[in-house]
Amino acid sequence: MNYNKNNAENVKIAYIGGGSRGWAWGLMSDLVSQEDMSGSVYLYDIDCDAAKNNEIIGNKSSLADGAKSRWEYVAAQTVGEALTGADFTVLSILPGTFDEMYSDVHEPEKYGIYQSVGDTAGPGGILRAMRTIPMYVDIAEAIKKYAPDTWVINYTNPMSLCVWTLYRIFPGIKAFGCCHEVFGTQELLADALREMRGTEGVKRSDICINVQGINHFTWINKANYRDIDLFDVYREFVDKFYETGYISDNSDHWINNSFACAHRVKFDLFRRYGNIAAAGDRHLAEFMPGRQYLNSPETVREWKFGLTTVDWRKEDLKKRLDKSAELVSGKQSFEIKNTGEEGVNQMKALLGLSTLVTNVNIPNMGQIPNLPLGAVVETNAVFRHNSLTPVFAGSMDNDIAALTLRHVYNHKTVLDGVLDGDRDKVFTAFLNDPLMTADRDSAKVLFDAMCKNTEKYLKF
Amino acid sequence: MNYNKNNAENVKIAYIGGGSRGWAWGLMSDLVSQEDMSGSVYLYDIDCDAAKNNEIIGNKSSLADGAKSRWEYVAAQTVGEALTGADFTVLSILPGTFDEMYSDVHEPEKYGIYQSVGDTAGPGGILRAMRTIPMYVDIAEAIKKYAPDTWVINYTNPMSLCVWTLYRIFPGIKAFGCCHEVFGTQELLADALREMRGTEGVKRSDICINVQGINHFTWINKANYRDIDLFDVYREFVDKFYETGYISDNSDHWINNSFACAHRVKFDLFRRYGNIAAAGDRHLAEFMPGRQYLNSPETVREWKFGLTTVDWRKEDLKKRLDKSAELVSGKQSFEIKNTGEEGVNQMKALLGLSTLVTNVNIPNMGQIPNLPLGAVVETNAVFRHNSLTPVFAGSMDNDIAALTLRHVYNHKTVLDGVLDGDRDKVFTAFLNDPLMTADRDSAKVLFDAMCKNTEKYLKF
Amino acid sequence: MNYNKNNAENVKIAYIGGGSRGWAWGLMSDLVSQEDMSGSVYLYDIDCDAAKNNEIIGNKSSLADGAKSRWEYVAAQTVGEALTGADFTVLSILPGTFDEMYSDVHEPEKYGIYQSVGDTAGPGGILRAMRTIPMYVDIAEAIKKYAPDTWVINYTNPMSLCVWTLYRIFPGIKAFGCCHEVFGTQELLADALREMRGTEGVKRSDICINVQGINHFTWINKANYRDIDLFDVYREFVDKFYETGYISDNSDHWINNSFACAHRVKFDLFRRYGNIAAAGDRHLAEFMPGRQYLNSPETVREWKFGLTTVDWRKEDLKKRLDKSAELVSGKQSFEIKNTGEEGVNQMKALLGLSTLVTNVNIPNMGQIPNLPLGAVVETNAVFRHNSLTPVFAGSMDNDIAALTLRHVYNHKTVLDGVLDGDRDKVFTAFLNDPLMTADRDSAKVLFDAMCKNTEKYLKF
Amino acid sequence: MNYNKNNAENVKIAYIGGGSRGWAWGLMSDLVSQEDMSGSVYLYDIDCDAAKNNEIIGNKSSLADGAKSRWEYVAAQTVGEALTGADFTVLSILPGTFDEMYSDVHEPEKYGIYQSVGDTAGPGGILRAMRTIPMYVDIAEAIKKYAPDTWVINYTNPMSLCVWTLYRIFPGIKAFGCCHEVFGTQELLADALREMRGTEGVKRSDICINVQGINHFTWINKANYRDIDLFDVYREFVDKFYETGYISDNSDHWINNSFACAHRVKFDLFRRYGNIAAAGDRHLAEFMPGRQYLNSPETVREWKFGLTTVDWRKEDLKKRLDKSAELVSGKQSFEIKNTGEEGVNQMKALLGLSTLVTNVNIPNMGQIPNLPLGAVVETNAVFRHNSLTPVFAGSMDNDIAALTLRHVYNHKTVLDGVLDGDRDKVFTAFLNDPLMTADRDSAKVLFDAMCKNTEKYLKF
Repeated sequence: MNYNKNNAENVKIAYIGGGSRGWAWGLMSDLVSQEDMSGSVYLYDIDCDAAKNNEIIGNKSSLADGAKSRWEYVAAQTVGEALTGADFTVLSILPGTFDEMYSDVHEPEKYGIYQSVGDTAGPGGILRAMRTIPMYVDIAEAIKKYAPDTWVINYTNPMSLCVWTLYRIFPGIKAFGCCHEVFGTQELLADALREMRGTEGVKRSDICINVQGINHFTWINKANYRDIDLFDVYREFVDKFYETGYISDNSDHWINNSFACAHRVKFDLFRRYGNIAAAGDRHLAEFMPGRQYLNSPETVREWKFGLTTVDWRKEDLKKRLDKSAELVSGKQSFEIKNTGEEGVNQMKALLGLSTLVTNVNIPNMGQIPNLPLGAVVETNAVFRHNSLTPVFAGSMDNDIAALTLRHVYNHKTVLDGVLDGDRDKVFTAFLNDPLMTADRDSAKVLFDAMCKNTEKYLKF
Repeated sequence: MNYNKNNAENVKIAYIGGGSRGWAWGLMSDLVSQEDMSGSVYLYDIDCDAAKNNEIIGNKSSLADGAKSRWEYVAAQTVGEALTGADFTVLSILPGTFDEMYSDVHEPEKYGIYQSVGDTAGPGGILRAMRTIPMYVDIAEAIKKYAPDTWVINYTNPMSLCVWTLYRIFPGIKAFGCCHEVFGTQELLADALREMRGTEGVKRSDICINVQGINHFTWINKANYRDIDLFDVYREFVDKFYETGYISDNSDHWINNSFACAHRVKFDLFRRYGNIAAAGDRHLAEFMPGRQYLNSPETVREWKFGLTTVDWRKEDLKKRLDKSAELVSGKQSFEIKNTGEEGVNQMKALLGLSTLVTNVNIPNMGQIPNLPLGAVVETNAVFRHNSLTPVFAGSMDNDIAALTLRHVYNHKTVLDGVLDGDRDKVFTAFLNDPLMTADRDSAKVLFDAMCKNTEKYLKF
Repeated sequence: MNYNKNNAENVKIAYIGGGSRGWAWGLMSDLVSQEDMSGSVYLYDIDCDAAKNNEIIGNKSSLADGAKSRWEYVAAQTVGEALTGADFTVLSILPGTFDEMYSDVHEPEKYGIYQSVGDTAGPGGILRAMRTIPMYVDIAEAIKKYAPDTWVINYTNPMSLCVWTLYRIFPGIKAFGCCHEVFGTQELLADALREMRGTEGVKRSDICINVQGINHFTWINKANYRDIDLFDVYREFVDKFYETGYISDNSDHWINNSFACAHRVKFDLFRRYGNIAAAGDRHLAEFMPGRQYLNSPETVREWKFGLTTVDWRKEDLKKRLDKSAELVSGKQSFEIKNTGEEGVNQMKALLGLSTLVTNVNIPNMGQIPNLPLGAVVETNAVFRHNSLTPVFAGSMDNDIAALTLRHVYNHKTVLDGVLDGDRDKVFTAFLNDPLMTADRDSAKVLFDAMCKNTEKYLKF
Repeated sequence: MNYNKNNAENVKIAYIGGGSRGWAWGLMSDLVSQEDMSGSVYLYDIDCDAAKNNEIIGNKSSLADGAKSRWEYVAAQTVGEALTGADFTVLSILPGTFDEMYSDVHEPEKYGIYQSVGDTAGPGGILRAMRTIPMYVDIAEAIKKYAPDTWVINYTNPMSLCVWTLYRIFPGIKAFGCCHEVFGTQELLADALREMRGTEGVKRSDICINVQGINHFTWINKANYRDIDLFDVYREFVDKFYETGYISDNSDHWINNSFACAHRVKFDLFRRYGNIAAAGDRHLAEFMPGRQYLNSPETVREWKFGLTTVDWRKEDLKKRLDKSAELVSGKQSFEIKNTGEEGVNQMKALLGLSTLVTNVNIPNMGQIPNLPLGAVVETNAVFRHNSLTPVFAGSMDNDIAALTLRHVYNHKTVLDGVLDGDRDKVFTAFLNDPLMTADRDSAKVLFDAMCKNTEKYLKF
């Protein structure tokens, strides 16, 4: 890239998993909305046709109504082609297919273990990690070889283990993980302000928070809007909506959309632990012992969040495939809309065009003193000229640290187990997971079955 | 006290809980076995008659066959009388009665939660802590007032929380907790040496170990006998006896004695985590998630250890009461036998008469870097002239640290909750305990019932 | 204060030392340059007339050409009047008079100890701390009493000890120290960019740096402008100007202005330690052993920086007194000019009107892991809605940490000594200071003489 | 080696520097005084004849009056021969000759820098390290190759850097450094007990101390004899002898023996810092800024300790060479006397024949929390069966930590500089040393001259 006055030109972005029907289009939309950046996006995907389709769609995006900059899209034949010379690299892949994901989510149900997502924690999260880590080993090696200076933005789950793998394989990498779950909680705080104090029009980025934890089990221990302490506001808000839950006007109802929730789990965690859990309830529930929020589908309904079934995902994919075809054929035209994601803002700040303080997932250098060094944690960080520095987030509260640490240590065991090719070690983690309410023998049968279901992606 | 050449004379020992039928007699026996110490023991007990009986028995002990020193016994009327001028203070009390203990152990069984001891971890351990902590607040204040320089040896459970309470209330206290569970594991290692290498006659004190962890969930990460690495020996030993378990000739069979075990849990933990768990299986099992070793009475039988019922304890007490009467009346004469306990050896070392390296429970000053500072941990320590210094035990292994930390953090929550009079906070810990496999609503009903059963000892 | 849309109105600022002829006028100028803030400034000074004069001058500032907001100035009769209700409190006092400062700077010269400033490190800095700490004890207590929630911005030297005293006396205080020395180094880096790469027009705020250290001995271990690593640029710059020194066009020549320098000390420190020292040479030199840059006035001249004599300061004050009179009388009209200071920007960010990342002095919570916790350190921090959070600055390099730690530990000894009223303890620090090249007996004579010279401000 | 009941037989000891006239004879004497150990000692020395002579002398030692065990001595031709199969390895070499030592000690005197020993800190210590580190690199590599499991006892100075080099090159090494300076301080405390309390017959090993620091700058922060706090005793002792100094009956007078001292430096450090410095004054003085105890030969005389001149060392060597000849020829017969050294006791404990708690130099794993991890520090440690574990020594007091840290960091810089072959880096350390009172240009001339004087031993 090069600078032309205050514009960054010829920025090259590599997109691994660039055949995506969803995230990719959002990125296209966010890129053409920028006035001060332009360049090219190289799409790499093991599904070449998908990448090729997105090349076509992407090249239309610069022509869409409201486009402020031009971006060229190229379906790269090889990872090397995509990465070489890339200023930024986006990682957003689906590790395996929905068949493996089906096993991740539903196989444990045979033992009474329900998972609302199954991609981060729980038996499903661990199996998914077993598949994903080897792929990330390859990606890290490719980045080291082709683009050691590129800034890497990861969106793939399990987030912590993807980012940790990158750093383990290539310690010099400049990578961070980016997730919008915390943003949703900022929006909830803005809702609370409106509900309890009548303050209208507060944007989520005006909600100033301190973030601590790990991805999808992130906590807020300080929140302000201007001179208002939002903990006072949230306490009242929780008191009002604890029993009924809260459904925002502009969000879907949890009963219709398995990504939505009524925040009852979040409210309950606030009462139990005094801090604000900052992720969707379906994620939070999976980090807690299994009998609490995920005891049975009835329990889940009482807490008013949804189990994201893989059938739903398959259905949803069909719709997106249709949309892809229509975008390619021109039957549907590319529409620019703000995604609310921060990837492009992060790129701009790293280019030195602005300063951005936001939450990211990177290795702990001490930003959370009571979590182990090296573990991938989520805190605020400052993005500036080619520079990403974590904010000192402080120690987590006693009980929350305890809940978090078991996952952090489990992450390490999974990572070591997969890299060492030691399936028994991974099983140790599998047994340690708080969702694991089956007895040990049953757990072993389950683990073996789940491994078998995803066997072709396991390298050991 | 005073020194007469190399003898310590007029040593004063205060014994809180001095009416004990068991531990007290062991102490008497160990004391009269010493050549270089003499003095007096002040027995204080809320059961005055019990203390009075032990005064009589104790004063007979100096006349027993083989007695090498004279000790005077006094049933103290007040704690102050016992403590004033005491060089050493022994704490060994039963917090509440067997009725409360019955609730601790058996009430959770209604929800399928089985506990093999119920005095340290699990719902029972937490309720017992709720009763015990207020008593220890009183004890700490009395020590601060009457004997701030006394060395305090605690034997009461829950060990970690008793010791932690003492330090929280009187930070200048010179207290440590003493437990024989690790000694049993040293004996098991001596057995392993004999079984696998034919080495006879190794004493437990010749087994050199590094100890890490918390009381009743203590781990050995290094063990030597002379130049032999005992990890190699133990691995072979576990391989041989994993399925059958191991029953030493000189120990009771687990089927007859609920304090005994066949070490199968210990062997299993070694295979899973690579380190040697160093406590009886009935203790270890309670620190692990509930479905693993304590899923049901059948599971427990398969793992070949016993559930220590409170009925058994009541029966056992009767026998000891009879023995007490006979010792008082002279129908039975006092017999000196080595208890294998280390309390008197520790006193001698603190008097400067020897150097002793053994395991104790004291606050973490950094001897285990990856456990929180201030938490009460178990490691080796050096006892010398009026000096107790922990050995640097090192960081615990990843997975074992994870298992341990949840209990350490839970200890802190229980302690804070009781001291703050905040029953909800204690319930948070109750829910966090890995034995808690009931859902949240059931857990709340159980907690309330257990609180009610022990209500008169709760100060909040 | 209150918000009116995006404006902050009725902001109350307390200014302790508000009679200042210099800093106060700068603040007035910066305040009226803001569009989105207005309110009042309460000036408190032990010199009531000076405060009264500044009240008059301040009230004229809102009428000056280019004023964008209205600020009312009030000469407060008492500290309580100034502090009560203050949103912000500025601390900028002269501890003692130029007579004491004369002793601080010049008395040590009798023993061959030259100091270029004498207000932070060295014998002079320590004596000044002995005077200042008791004043800051009073200030901290007043803030605790009258305005516990006010944000406190300290400008007084010795910076680290002033801020440390505030936190020691009132741990809940929201205070930070603000110093422009780092800004000058950012400007130097912009100069280097222009000199070595021809890049014009880069503002100091565009120079992105990571800051580590303590006030006036601050170091940069990472510096970027956009995608340019400024360490490469600075290395070339140092190579070019190492012998001659570098004098910027828009800065005064070091020979005429004792605040200026040719950066030769900074260049030399870069060659020795590999990081960029980020303060004026006259400050940096005082932190290094005495024989190195301050061996004699000749050495100082060779290194091309100046000894700031107190005679010069007296002369300078006269000019400022004249200016004050003219501003009061109206002979001279108040002129708005950008000071380059950041105090007002910090206030705006704390009001939630912007996000600011800049360097401040606050207690170490772990932002520099290899400096002691609690010591006042200088790093970047994020200012947002009622929130100040340090950026994780990382560990300092080995040799630089060693140079820094002796001062940090000395700070603690001085603070403890003054608060304990233990002059011997302070003398321990006096002897430890690296400028102390006199032998111990001479050092004692010097210390006693310097104490005598400032006796009336010492409370012990 | 092998065990025969409670005896260790066929123990093999390698002695690098085995031609020594002094230490070697002491070791011989200590070895034949043991009843429960026997075996062989392989002597390796670059001076083959010296080793050969010691082989002859050593083989006579088993025949001496009072010998309790048999030891065979062999002059090894190669390091490999000495090390292969060695259970223990003793390192005690003279790095270079007295000519280089002459430069180390006396060259800096040209610049007014006096050193009382010149082998640990100061310019001399740094130059000696530059010679020694490359030799220790070779030794570490040989140990790794020939005897990776041997226990290594180092006696060579500079102690910290010798041990640090061993661990840097071969992290798996089982090495520790052993020094008797602390023992002397224990004897001084026994003297204080006798002088102030009339307690006779206390052995140094009965003085129970906590040790913190680095070799030759070691500090005691806790000392007991039985129930007596020796800090009270020492305070009175210092008060009595502060001015005159204290000369024990059984030690040489400082005026006749440059290894002796009147402890005035130690007494002064106690008054300044509150802890007991635990090394000879001539060592302690070298760690303090140069103007304090080593300002001039007169200053040294006032403080009543001696400058150990190299002329004295040369004279002393002559006497020892004569003694060697007489021992070889049989003109003088080998005499067994207790050296007071602990090397053989340490070996016995590592063989599992006893438990020993004593002070050693090993890398900091956290035993002193406020010194950097990895740095070689001196604390107590427990020696048992093939096991050496540091005692948790705690954080050093503020001012003492500051004095110590500058040396610790300097050690690291010297080590890095020598291993990187970067003479400029070593010069950085040379300038940082507190004895360096010359200005920078003079320091450079001195450094270059000293390097030249020892050039043939420098590998860079």
